[in-house]
Amino acid sequence: MKFGGTSMAGTERIRRVANIVRRQQAAGHEVAVVVSAMAGETDRLVNFCREANPLYDPAEYDVVVASGEQVTSGLLALTLQAMGCKARSWLGWQLPIHTDDAHAKARIEDFDSEALLASMAAGEIAVIPGFQGLSPANRVTTLGRGGSDTSAVAVAAAINADRCDIYTDVDGVYTTDPRIVAKARKLSHVTYEEMLELASVGSKVLQTRSVSLAMKEKVRVQVLSSFIDDDAPAADTLPGTMIVSDEELEGLDMERQLITGIAADKNEAKVTLTRIADRPGAVATVFEPLAANNINVDMIIQNVAKDKGETDVTFTVPKADLLRTQALLEENKDKIGFFRMISDDKVAKISVVGVGMRSHAGVASTMFKALADRGINIQAISTSEIKVSVLIDEDETELAVRVLHTAYDLDAKDDAA
Amino acid sequence: MKFGGTSMAGTERIRRVANIVRRQQAAGHEVAVVVSAMAGETDRLVNFCREANPLYDPAEYDVVVASGEQVTSGLLALTLQAMGCKARSWLGWQLPIHTDDAHAKARIEDFDSEALLASMAAGEIAVIPGFQGLSPANRVTTLGRGGSDTSAVAVAAAINADRCDIYTDVDGVYTTDPRIVAKARKLSHVTYEEMLELASVGSKVLQTRSVSLAMKEKVRVQVLSSFIDDDAPAADTLPGTMIVSDEELEGLDMERQLITGIAADKNEAKVTLTRIADRPGAVATVFEPLAANNINVDMIIQNVAKDKGETDVTFTVPKADLLRTQALLEENKDKIGFFRMISDDKVAKISVVGVGMRSHAGVASTMFKALADRGINIQAISTSEIKVSVLIDEDETELAVRVLHTAYDLDAKDDAA
Repeated sequence: MKFGGTSMAGTERIRRVANIVRRQQAAGHEVAVVVSAMAGETDRLVNFCREANPLYDPAEYDVVVASGEQVTSGLLALTLQAMGCKARSWLGWQLPIHTDDAHAKARIEDFDSEALLASMAAGEIAVIPGFQGLSPANRVTTLGRGGSDTSAVAVAAAINADRCDIYTDVDGVYTTDPRIVAKARKLSHVTYEEMLELASVGSKVLQTRSVSLAMKEKVRVQVLSSFIDDDAPAADTLPGTMIVSDEELEGLDMERQLITGIAADKNEAKVTLTRIADRPGAVATVFEPLAANNINVDMIIQNVAKDKGETDVTFTVPKADLLRTQALLEENKDKIGFFRMISDDKVAKISVVGVGMRSHAGVASTMFKALADRGINIQAISTSEIKVSVLIDEDETELAVRVLHTAYDLDAKDDAA
Repeated sequence: MKFGGTSMAGTERIRRVANIVRRQQAAGHEVAVVVSAMAGETDRLVNFCREANPLYDPAEYDVVVASGEQVTSGLLALTLQAMGCKARSWLGWQLPIHTDDAHAKARIEDFDSEALLASMAAGEIAVIPGFQGLSPANRVTTLGRGGSDTSAVAVAAAINADRCDIYTDVDGVYTTDPRIVAKARKLSHVTYEEMLELASVGSKVLQTRSVSLAMKEKVRVQVLSSFIDDDAPAADTLPGTMIVSDEELEGLDMERQLITGIAADKNEAKVTLTRIADRPGAVATVFEPLAANNINVDMIIQNVAKDKGETDVTFTVPKADLLRTQALLEENKDKIGFFRMISDDKVAKISVVGVGMRSHAGVASTMFKALADRGINIQAISTSEIKVSVLIDEDETELAVRVLHTAYDLDAKDDAA
């Protein structure tokens, strides 16, 4: 079971979480719980780091921000004990959850579940702070924002869990953000691949890596709401969204839509470098220093070469990495040989996602036409087998999502809304 | 160097601390820094624990409260890096600082300084969260409130430091709290023993155990203010209070007072058990369960046995332990055989301290007379070789301190104030 920051925000809510956990144990399950920091806490800690040092050392950043989950894990263990359950916290370095040394965005490498399983078998509820691990150099690592989902899936995989229930502040995965589109519908099932694309483009229900890991490790993940009644049944029978394989979904024999969902992502920033030499290898020099510093570059567009043998390159990076990106590119300005660097962090990426589009042409053109009809300008495009994404002005995010939700016939019928 | 919570309260203050540290390094010292949590943070975390579980499991309590120092250690390392210094944090479990398993009030057992010394020799400033350690069971321990001072002295001892500078929100040790007595004087030197008594009775400059440890390990401790100008000299020449041995103090050939200082402590609560059987061993049954739960009992008074062969026992415990004390005594009521338990947490302990009193009779009688003259009722008395303490009504704390400060001729002369 995994509980997010909103569910852990304060001792009263932690008591509700403990109640849900306790019922699950009472239903006959052995339970491990992964927790996030209290809502707002990680932001508070990240802000401290920025104030202390805008170009922060990610190893020290990890020391600071990992503390949020440490607090909630101890508090949940205390609360479960107050209810008469046996419970204890297991910090990242105690289990330990071994990661690589990519601080602030570490990857879980392996995980010794022996002590954990022994404790669970003895009837103890294991409470594990999400988001944190231990580097080969014996230092605290964190997995990147939202990393607690990944922690939960990793724990579920390591202990061979029947299911990994991710409790959030929404009650499942929707065709799009219901706060934007009132007629968004809850999906009973999505595939790992769809969820992967939805997660990667800002449907903030689950962290991308948690879904990849679930797919790789074949962990059955259920997304459901932590805001349930105190007398609700245990999670086995709750109507969340199950994330399953393509095969399992086909076996369910459900009516499929062409498009499963629409996601908007405001966490990217756009960077343009002008007048780079249009020769082989020149563009690679842009991305080498970013890769070396673990900055993920997403959309890349290279404009048609101009007659002077020069080209403009535009790409997106996470907003949180924009300052570091700018510093790195400035450092390498001579090597790359660009003229100007132009940044824009007022952009949004809108994506339509669905395994159904594999066998259907015309998904992209429907998208472009629907947006053009409303005068929304497309700044960049990227596609995958089950996704089409466009970059637009951030101010047009909600409009674009509503237009597309209708264009792909995803709006709930009035009687089902 | 050790910095307390007020000095670490927010990134702006941490920058001031980093400046002080940097200057010390620039003056040619290798530096290790021990830090407290931001002022108020530990209280916030303790309150969370209380809300989660009033009778909290100290092992989980430690997980929660140790996070405060983890945050400030990372932030100070980041801030030093921003100033161009090499710095890194070393968490309690990383060094590790081995303690016993008395969670929430653990004692440091040993400390492997090898990695720390190597890092310092390489020019890296070591930043160590105070207050925390690692138990034999590989769990987080904390040393009790104010434990960061003890951490600092332990680090200083382990690395054979020339000096342990404790930076606080006061600029030294005074004859009494200057907020109570405007004419209190700063002491240039006090002995370990005096400091021990002053610390144990609520002169909140240093934690008791830090002073015992300094005495045992012969660590020269200096208390000084962290609120100094940005261009102040390095700490070698700052006028704080040096805590030294009796011998060193005698060598200084200073004019000594009979009494060095007066301290008030509002952190004790009084418990009375009535009508306990007046037979050998009966009183021991009161204190066994408290000792087994690491609750420190301080003053003990047993009233004269009444004709029925029964006696009343009164003692004090830390206010923070009062609830647990009441619960433990209630559990053992039949075994102890008392009639009623009466508690009072509105008491204060006032102490006069000085190595000078060893050779002088009349210190206690001066105290009792001065208090009686002002109508202050004494509820209990305890003495040691260099201290006389009385328990009084909490409301009379300030009055009692002022009366005694004058009675022992400690008031600063007007021209020296």
